[in-house]
Amino acid sequence: MSDKEKDYLAINELSYSEDGLIAAIIQDWDTTDVLMLAWMNRDALQKSIDTGYTWFWSRSRKRLWQKGEESGNVQRIQSISYDCDADTLLIKVQQGGDGVACHTGAPTCFYRELKGL
Amino acid sequence: MSDKEKDYLAINELSYSEDGLIAAIIQDWDTTDVLMLAWMNRDALQKSIDTGYTWFWSRSRKRLWQKGEESGNVQRIQSISYDCDADTLLIKVQQGGDGVACHTGAPTCFYRELKGL
Repeated sequence: MSDKEKDYLAINELSYSEDGLIAAIIQDWDTTDVLMLAWMNRDALQKSIDTGYTWFWSRSRKRLWQKGEESGNVQRIQSISYDCDADTLLIKVQQGGDGVACHTGAPTCFYRELKGL
Repeated sequence: MSDKEKDYLAINELSYSEDGLIAAIIQDWDTTDVLMLAWMNRDALQKSIDTGYTWFWSRSRKRLWQKGEESGNVQRIQSISYDCDADTLLIKVQQGGDGVACHTGAPTCFYRELKGL
Protein backbone atom coordinates (compact mmCIF):
# COMPACT_ATOMS: atom_id res chain seq x y z
CA MET A 1 0.00 0.00 0.00
CA SER A 2 1.40 3.42 -0.95
CA ASP A 3 1.75 6.31 1.48
CA LYS A 4 -1.08 8.06 -0.38
CA GLU A 5 -3.32 5.04 0.14
CA LYS A 6 -2.39 4.85 3.83
CA ASP A 7 -3.23 8.53 4.19
CA TYR A 8 -6.56 7.97 2.48
CA LEU A 9 -7.39 5.31 5.07
CA ALA A 10 -6.22 7.55 7.93
CA ILE A 11 -8.29 10.48 6.67
CA ASN A 12 -11.37 8.29 6.77
CA GLU A 13 -10.56 7.09 10.28
CA LEU A 14 -10.19 10.58 11.72
CA SER A 15 -12.89 11.71 14.12
CA TYR A 16 -14.86 14.62 12.71
CA SER A 17 -17.38 16.69 14.66
CA GLU A 18 -21.11 16.42 13.98
CA ASP A 19 -20.73 19.13 11.36
CA GLY A 20 -17.89 17.27 9.71
CA LEU A 21 -15.00 19.36 10.99
CA ILE A 22 -11.65 18.70 12.62
CA ALA A 23 -9.46 21.29 14.37
CA ALA A 24 -6.08 22.00 12.78
CA ILE A 25 -3.29 23.58 14.83
CA ILE A 26 -0.85 25.37 12.53
CA GLN A 27 2.76 25.54 13.74
CA ASP A 28 5.64 27.35 12.05
CA TRP A 29 8.21 24.81 10.86
CA ASP A 30 11.11 27.24 11.25
CA THR A 31 10.30 29.26 14.40
CA THR A 32 8.13 26.54 16.09
CA ASP A 33 5.64 29.30 16.99
CA VAL A 34 2.01 28.22 17.03
CA LEU A 35 0.45 30.44 14.36
CA MET A 36 -3.29 29.75 14.37
CA LEU A 37 -6.12 27.28 14.87
CA ALA A 38 -8.53 26.71 12.00
CA TRP A 39 -11.03 24.08 10.90
CA MET A 40 -10.87 21.56 8.10
CA ASN A 41 -13.45 19.24 6.69
CA ARG A 42 -12.47 16.10 4.79
CA ASP A 43 -12.29 17.97 1.48
CA ALA A 44 -10.06 20.70 2.93
CA LEU A 45 -7.69 18.10 4.34
CA GLN A 46 -7.58 16.16 1.09
CA LYS A 47 -6.98 19.38 -0.88
CA SER A 48 -4.21 20.37 1.56
CA ILE A 49 -2.52 17.00 1.05
CA ASP A 50 -2.94 17.12 -2.73
CA THR A 51 -1.64 20.69 -3.14
CA GLY A 52 0.87 20.89 -0.26
CA TYR A 53 -0.71 24.14 0.96
CA THR A 54 -3.22 24.67 3.77
CA TRP A 55 -6.90 24.79 2.88
CA PHE A 56 -9.62 25.25 5.48
CA TRP A 57 -13.39 25.26 5.80
CA SER A 58 -14.84 28.66 6.59
CA ARG A 59 -17.75 28.19 8.97
CA SER A 60 -19.00 31.74 8.34
CA ARG A 61 -18.64 31.76 4.53
CA LYS A 62 -19.46 28.04 4.19
CA ARG A 63 -16.78 27.38 1.62
CA LEU A 64 -13.25 26.07 1.27
CA TRP A 65 -10.56 28.72 1.35
CA GLN A 66 -6.84 28.59 0.89
CA LYS A 67 -4.92 30.36 3.62
CA GLY A 68 -3.34 33.40 1.94
CA GLU A 69 -5.56 33.30 -1.15
CA GLU A 70 -6.09 37.06 -0.82
CA SER A 71 -3.07 38.19 1.22
CA GLY A 72 -0.50 35.98 -0.48
CA ASN A 73 0.52 34.63 2.93
CA VAL A 74 0.15 31.01 1.90
CA GLN A 75 1.38 28.13 4.05
CA ARG A 76 3.54 25.37 2.54
CA ILE A 77 2.95 22.14 4.46
CA GLN A 78 5.92 20.27 5.88
CA SER A 79 4.13 17.63 7.97
CA ILE A 80 0.67 16.62 9.17
CA SER A 81 0.20 14.71 12.44
CA TYR A 82 -2.94 13.73 14.34
CA ASP A 83 -3.54 13.12 18.01
CA CYS A 84 -4.40 10.11 20.16
CA ASP A 85 -8.14 10.78 19.83
CA ALA A 86 -7.76 11.36 16.07
CA ASP A 87 -9.83 14.52 16.44
CA THR A 88 -7.13 17.20 16.10
CA LEU A 89 -4.48 17.80 13.44
CA LEU A 90 -1.07 19.37 13.93
CA ILE A 91 0.22 20.85 10.66
CA LYS A 92 3.72 22.26 10.42
CA VAL A 93 4.15 24.86 7.70
CA GLN A 94 6.57 27.25 6.18
CA GLN A 95 4.75 30.59 6.33
CA GLY A 96 5.00 32.26 2.94
CA GLY A 97 4.31 35.77 1.75
CA ASP A 98 5.31 38.34 4.37
CA GLY A 99 5.81 35.60 6.97
CA VAL A 100 2.59 36.73 8.61
CA ALA A 101 -0.14 34.28 9.63
CA CYS A 102 -2.68 36.60 11.24
CA HIS A 103 -5.13 38.77 9.33
CA THR A 104 -4.22 41.59 11.76
CA GLY A 105 -0.69 41.63 10.36
CA ALA A 106 0.84 39.98 13.43
CA PRO A 107 3.23 37.08 12.75
CA THR A 108 1.05 34.74 14.85
CA CYS A 109 -2.62 35.00 15.83
CA PHE A 110 -1.60 34.50 19.49
CA TYR A 111 -0.18 37.98 20.03
CA ARG A 112 -2.04 38.80 23.26
CA GLU A 113 -1.05 37.37 26.62
CA LEU A 114 -2.65 37.09 30.05
CA LYS A 115 -0.27 38.67 32.53
CA GLY A 116 -1.47 37.85 36.03
CA LEU A 117 -0.09 34.34 36.41
CA MET B 1 -5.54 48.13 37.45
CA SER B 2 -3.52 45.06 38.48
CA ASP B 3 -2.51 42.29 36.08
CA LYS B 4 -4.97 40.00 37.87
CA GLU B 5 -7.78 42.51 37.27
CA LYS B 6 -6.79 42.88 33.60
CA ASP B 7 -6.85 39.10 33.23
CA TYR B 8 -10.29 38.97 34.84
CA LEU B 9 -11.56 41.41 32.21
CA ALA B 10 -9.86 39.45 29.40
CA ILE B 11 -11.34 36.17 30.61
CA ASN B 12 -14.80 37.67 30.38
CA GLU B 13 -14.13 39.03 26.91
CA LEU B 14 -12.99 35.69 25.48
CA SER B 15 -15.33 34.06 23.01
CA TYR B 16 -16.72 30.79 24.36
CA SER B 17 -18.70 28.27 22.33
CA GLU B 18 -22.42 27.77 22.88
CA ASP B 19 -21.61 25.19 25.53
CA GLY B 20 -19.24 27.59 27.28
CA LEU B 21 -15.95 26.13 26.10
CA ILE B 22 -12.75 27.44 24.58
CA ALA B 23 -10.03 25.36 22.91
CA ALA B 24 -6.63 25.34 24.61
CA ILE B 25 -3.51 24.36 22.65
CA ILE B 26 -0.83 23.10 25.04
CA GLN B 27 2.78 23.67 23.95
CA ASP B 28 5.91 22.48 25.74
CA TRP B 29 7.86 25.49 27.02
CA ASP B 30 11.20 23.68 26.73
CA THR B 31 10.94 21.58 23.56
CA THR B 32 8.31 23.79 21.80
CA ASP B 33 6.47 20.59 20.82
CA VAL B 34 2.69 20.91 20.65
CA LEU B 35 1.52 18.41 23.27
CA MET B 36 -2.27 18.31 23.14
CA LEU B 37 -5.53 20.16 22.53
CA ALA B 38 -8.09 20.23 25.33
CA TRP B 39 -11.12 22.29 26.33
CA MET B 40 -11.55 24.79 29.13
CA ASN B 41 -14.61 26.54 30.43
CA ARG B 42 -14.35 29.80 32.35
CA ASP B 43 -13.89 28.00 35.68
CA ALA B 44 -11.12 25.79 34.32
CA LEU B 45 -9.27 28.81 32.96
CA GLN B 46 -9.65 30.72 36.22
CA LYS B 47 -8.48 27.70 38.21
CA SER B 48 -5.50 27.28 35.87
CA ILE B 49 -4.53 30.92 36.42
CA ASP B 50 -5.04 30.71 40.19
CA THR B 51 -3.07 27.48 40.66
CA GLY B 52 -0.49 27.81 37.87
CA TYR B 53 -1.33 24.30 36.62
CA THR B 54 -3.59 23.27 33.72
CA TRP B 55 -7.19 22.40 34.49
CA PHE B 56 -9.68 21.41 31.79
CA TRP B 57 -13.35 20.64 31.35
CA SER B 58 -14.08 17.02 30.54
CA ARG B 59 -16.95 16.89 28.06
CA SER B 60 -17.46 13.17 28.66
CA ARG B 61 -17.23 13.21 32.47
CA LYS B 62 -18.80 16.68 32.79
CA ARG B 63 -16.39 17.88 35.44
CA LEU B 64 -13.21 19.87 35.88
CA TRP B 65 -10.03 17.81 35.92
CA GLN B 66 -6.44 18.69 36.50
CA LYS B 67 -4.10 17.35 33.83
CA GLY B 68 -2.00 14.72 35.59
CA GLU B 69 -4.30 14.34 38.58
CA GLU B 70 -4.04 10.54 38.25
CA SER B 71 -0.79 10.07 36.31
CA GLY B 72 1.23 12.73 38.09
CA ASN B 73 2.06 14.27 34.71
CA VAL B 74 0.94 17.75 35.72
CA GLN B 75 1.63 20.81 33.60
CA ARG B 76 3.14 23.95 35.17
CA ILE B 77 1.97 27.00 33.22
CA GLN B 78 4.54 29.45 31.90
CA SER B 79 2.32 31.66 29.73
CA ILE B 80 -1.23 31.97 28.41
CA SER B 81 -1.97 33.75 25.13
CA TYR B 82 -5.17 34.09 23.13
CA ASP B 83 -5.75 34.58 19.44
CA CYS B 84 -7.14 37.36 17.24
CA ASP B 85 -10.67 35.94 17.43
CA ALA B 86 -10.31 35.44 21.21
CA ASP B 87 -11.69 31.93 20.81
CA THR B 88 -8.52 29.85 21.24
CA LEU B 89 -5.89 29.78 23.98
CA LEU B 90 -2.21 28.93 23.62
CA ILE B 91 -0.76 27.74 26.92
CA LYS B 92 2.94 27.05 27.29
CA VAL B 93 3.79 24.59 30.04
CA GLN B 94 6.60 22.73 31.65
CA GLN B 95 5.50 19.11 31.42
CA GLY B 96 5.98 17.51 34.86
CA GLY B 97 5.96 13.92 36.02
CA ASP B 98 7.54 11.62 33.46
CA GLY B 99 7.58 14.40 30.86
CA VAL B 100 4.70 12.66 29.14
CA ALA B 101 1.59 14.52 27.99
CA CYS B 102 -0.38 11.72 26.31
CA HIS B 103 -2.41 9.10 28.14
CA THR B 104 -0.88 6.54 25.76
CA GLY B 105 2.55 7.19 27.26
CA ALA B 106 3.81 9.14 24.25
CA PRO B 107 5.54 12.46 25.00
CA THR B 108 3.01 14.31 22.83
CA CYS B 109 -0.50 13.32 21.71
CA PHE B 110 0.50 14.03 18.08
CA TYR B 111 2.62 10.93 17.61
CA ARG B 112 1.08 9.75 14.31
CA GLU B 113 1.87 11.35 11.00
CA LEU B 114 0.37 11.31 7.53
CA LYS B 115 3.09 10.27 5.10
CA GLY B 116 1.87 10.85 1.58
CA LEU B 117 2.55 14.58 1.24
